[in-house]
Amino acid sequence: MTEKQQHDVEQGAVFAPKFDSSGLLSAVAVDVETQQVLMVAFMDSEALAKTRASGLAHFHSRSRGRLWLKGESSGNVLKVEEIRIDCDQDAIVLMVRPAGPACHTGERSCFYRRIEGDRLQRLPD
Amino acid sequence: MTEKQQHDVEQGAVFAPKFDSSGLLSAVAVDVETQQVLMVAFMDSEALAKTRASGLAHFHSRSRGRLWLKGESSGNVLKVEEIRIDCDQDAIVLMVRPAGPACHTGERSCFYRRIEGDRLQRLPD
Repeated sequence: MTEKQQHDVEQGAVFAPKFDSSGLLSAVAVDVETQQVLMVAFMDSEALAKTRASGLAHFHSRSRGRLWLKGESSGNVLKVEEIRIDCDQDAIVLMVRPAGPACHTGERSCFYRRIEGDRLQRLPD
Repeated sequence: MTEKQQHDVEQGAVFAPKFDSSGLLSAVAVDVETQQVLMVAFMDSEALAKTRASGLAHFHSRSRGRLWLKGESSGNVLKVEEIRIDCDQDAIVLMVRPAGPACHTGERSCFYRRIEGDRLQRLPD
């Protein structure tokens, strides 16, 4: 990439998502009301396209090797209000309204514990 | 993994970070004051250990293939106040106090643009 191209990607208005060698980029879902990070996953170009077309967060499951509509079994979908992209366009933040707990454990966010020495401690609600 | 082991990882107090086949997990830096997502990167076990030992965010650069102290050249380090981990322990949220702009472009956050059709639009400060 030339310096001009790099500048356009990093500071311009050109949308040029950069998928990694596995075809993925990182995606972080953030609650648009509370600003809380709800979950972190991966998207391939199909998941990104489906998310944009449907307004519901879709991801690529690396363990299952397939497209995944978040909430497809639980009903706890994430309605996407805005998609933000980082400087080098290899990570995305979805600003979402969750239909229910984002975590399959029933917690509002998957990040409900903090590391405390060699143990994990539950955060206050 | 047995159901019991999975339950301990996902809902218990056992710290058992799950690095992927490349030895990495996703790491999101969040401003502890504003709750803003500042950047998304990857950590290997070395980066996680250095982060915990120093209190400054370290990552693994996939492009450079090496450990990277965030701010090592710019001085814009991220002081880590808390480390949160998700249910299946393959992603981490660092709650940080940034010493300066987190983005190399000089923006406070790397996520300073939103996708708008086929273009990117700068978010208000």
